[in-house]
Amino acid sequence: MEERNYEQRREKLLELLESRRLKSLQNELEDMNEFDIAEFLTELGEEDKQKMAMVFRLLSKGQGAEVFAELDAPEQQEIIGSITDKELGYIIEEMYVDDAVDMMEELPANIVKRVMRTATPETRALINQYLKYPENSAGSIMTAEFVDLKKYMNVRESIARIRRVGEDKETIYVCYVTNAHRRLEGVVTVKDLLLHDDEAAIEDIMDRNVIFVRTTDDRSEAAERISDYDLLAIPVVDREDRLVGIVTVDDVIDVLEEETTEDFDLMSGVSPSDTPYSRAGVLELWKRRIPWLMFLMLSATFTSMIITRFEDALAKTAVLTGFIPMLMGTGGNSGSQSSTAVIRSLSIGDTEPGDILRVVWKEIRVAVLCGLALAVVNFFKMMLIDRFLLGNDGVTALVALTVSVTLVFVVIFAKAVGCTLPMAAEKIGIDPAVMASPLISTITDAVSLLIYFALATVMLHI
Amino acid sequence: MEERNYEQRREKLLELLESRRLKSLQNELEDMNEFDIAEFLTELGEEDKQKMAMVFRLLSKGQGAEVFAELDAPEQQEIIGSITDKELGYIIEEMYVDDAVDMMEELPANIVKRVMRTATPETRALINQYLKYPENSAGSIMTAEFVDLKKYMNVRESIARIRRVGEDKETIYVCYVTNAHRRLEGVVTVKDLLLHDDEAAIEDIMDRNVIFVRTTDDRSEAAERISDYDLLAIPVVDREDRLVGIVTVDDVIDVLEEETTEDFDLMSGVSPSDTPYSRAGVLELWKRRIPWLMFLMLSATFTSMIITRFEDALAKTAVLTGFIPMLMGTGGNSGSQSSTAVIRSLSIGDTEPGDILRVVWKEIRVAVLCGLALAVVNFFKMMLIDRFLLGNDGVTALVALTVSVTLVFVVIFAKAVGCTLPMAAEKIGIDPAVMASPLISTITDAVSLLIYFALATVMLHI
Repeated sequence: MEERNYEQRREKLLELLESRRLKSLQNELEDMNEFDIAEFLTELGEEDKQKMAMVFRLLSKGQGAEVFAELDAPEQQEIIGSITDKELGYIIEEMYVDDAVDMMEELPANIVKRVMRTATPETRALINQYLKYPENSAGSIMTAEFVDLKKYMNVRESIARIRRVGEDKETIYVCYVTNAHRRLEGVVTVKDLLLHDDEAAIEDIMDRNVIFVRTTDDRSEAAERISDYDLLAIPVVDREDRLVGIVTVDDVIDVLEEETTEDFDLMSGVSPSDTPYSRAGVLELWKRRIPWLMFLMLSATFTSMIITRFEDALAKTAVLTGFIPMLMGTGGNSGSQSSTAVIRSLSIGDTEPGDILRVVWKEIRVAVLCGLALAVVNFFKMMLIDRFLLGNDGVTALVALTVSVTLVFVVIFAKAVGCTLPMAAEKIGIDPAVMASPLISTITDAVSLLIYFALATVMLHI
Repeated sequence: MEERNYEQRREKLLELLESRRLKSLQNELEDMNEFDIAEFLTELGEEDKQKMAMVFRLLSKGQGAEVFAELDAPEQQEIIGSITDKELGYIIEEMYVDDAVDMMEELPANIVKRVMRTATPETRALINQYLKYPENSAGSIMTAEFVDLKKYMNVRESIARIRRVGEDKETIYVCYVTNAHRRLEGVVTVKDLLLHDDEAAIEDIMDRNVIFVRTTDDRSEAAERISDYDLLAIPVVDREDRLVGIVTVDDVIDVLEEETTEDFDLMSGVSPSDTPYSRAGVLELWKRRIPWLMFLMLSATFTSMIITRFEDALAKTAVLTGFIPMLMGTGGNSGSQSSTAVIRSLSIGDTEPGDILRVVWKEIRVAVLCGLALAVVNFFKMMLIDRFLLGNDGVTALVALTVSVTLVFVVIFAKAVGCTLPMAAEKIGIDPAVMASPLISTITDAVSLLIYFALATVMLHI
């Protein structure tokens, strides 16, 4: 057993490369797995693209194809530019169709053309078929490399078929039983096959209760079912119930990570993108961030208007101004606690939009408890710290009471809005992650001020 | 092929239950998968715990054990209370050890005792061994049910062994080759076995370059490697390199979801918990949310102090107060965009703590672009909307300029802090998700005010 000592290995590889001992470098690479090699190439490419392409060409054909599939689009593009059409053709044929399709979606048009030209007609047809499925659909992430069996086969014949066709399949462990019209009839795992007699009929051991998705379903649907039912792969059927592909568990992990990143983006007011942060350029980040910042900045016009409306009152009772940031901050934080909890709960299927009343009722009770606790602590804090310790004479018991009572209402309002907006969004088909902290803060900011001034008018007669 | 029509099925089940046609109900349940049955039982349990336990007892022994593993702790506890020690013993033996351990960690002590009493000594030893591993370690989520092979076996013998022992194993598709001291020597997949001749020696076809984790590694380490290397399972070795368990890909999906939920909790200022939102009670939610709210509310004392310090100036130039919320809001949003991006990037391994300088430099450039764009738009918005449209004469060109220049500095400061704090946290071993929007908003709130008043003093001579 070898340690996963990529760091040490890296030094050695760089040394061999430096001293041009390419034969030794080649031997060293042969022992490594494709993921680490891809990482090494990416690092090389950051300094010298040509050196990266040169090292890539040291790899054996098979290993090269595997490493290629692990690389990101910019490196793939560089390597495509440095190899012959024949080499490229080999790589494309070796790649799983879903990986090839992912790549095509990222590459510039002229390179896509060259890739398509070097592919065999069958591969080209497959890739084309995939590219037609809507973005983020199950169809767009499926692979056609699965093992299909017929129900009249027995275990021995099935294993023989797996041995014959299994080499190129993305998974052989789950096999799908189809009829003459390619309709899906059942599923049988290699475990089932191995645990039954050679003569047992597939018909008798297959599971007819197949969990599947349709090509047009959202890819997160496939991810959710694989995760719920602990599957290694899920079959994808078209509108006529014909089996057209499968989605495997490793792809699902990627989907879950991408969907989560998308949620994080949306929730912080950033347009989502597939480009990872480390690769996104300054201009790209700017473009993804400025729209929400701009919108939220302009929305704050309402808070300015409210404050302007109460300008004279504030000038007279100046002490009130000092607590505006605390009230708005606490409102924003209370709201984002609720919205984040609800958004996450919706996204993992723990809460359904139909639960809205139950959720709002729960949040209001939590809000009352939070609001009261904060109000009590705030009252004593204002009297002890602001009044006595800091000597701010404007902070009377009545002012402290006004701020504390405002807190209770602000927290209740913030939490109610924080849970309602995401649930309502989900109900009408908008991604609930859009209804996150930034938007909710902006709404609670304005409402907090209104509550504050209304209470101050009543309690302090400002 | 049947549709996944759980909703329709549910009606039928409820009807059969209502009319006490228990035999038909039993037949119906027999056809369903354990996940759907668990969902049905959970729904039943919400209304009537006893009814749920009664339906559970209709299940066959094997199915019952599978369904039991899918249930959450409260339902498991209820069912444990309604079955005999013998039935309980059977369920525990049938459960994978990792599922049993998960359950034990949630159950009250007296029930754990009863469970342990009904388990066989071997199972008890295994569970005990697992419970010793630190929370969230790879050891705590591994299962001992794997297939081990010896390198002197050939393919035929290996397949025979899998057929003999495979039934109870969590995965049979990846087998581990160990020596006489239980040290891990290699890994061989069922695919390798099926694609080689019956007489091929394991020694020749096994992969010696095994990706593994240690029992004490964080469970997210196991998840990351399974995801990076597209594995179905990863072996877990102890300090002496002995193979003690495996972590399978389905467990990893759960780990990833839990870790993400934890990040969402931390990032919204909520103490993380394993209880899903829908199950968390009002008091529990209050306890998880109030500490950060309280801390952040008290931290806002600084903003009050700053405003109080400039109270007289504000009273004279009252128009300035109206833009405080906008400045603080924009600062908070800018900061949380950066902190969220960096936290996510760190958590998926896209960025390393060592990249800190590169990240800060990138964020500052993005911030300058964002700040300038916001400042220009804000200047014209203030002149056109606030001054002319709303007739606020206090908004002079110089005031608009002061606010706009402040915006630039606030955005730069917020984004710099937003990216630096999470990276620094990761470096010193604190979860970067703690350094998220709420904390960063509180810091930028105070600093925004200082920048604002400093610039106003210089530019407007307040």
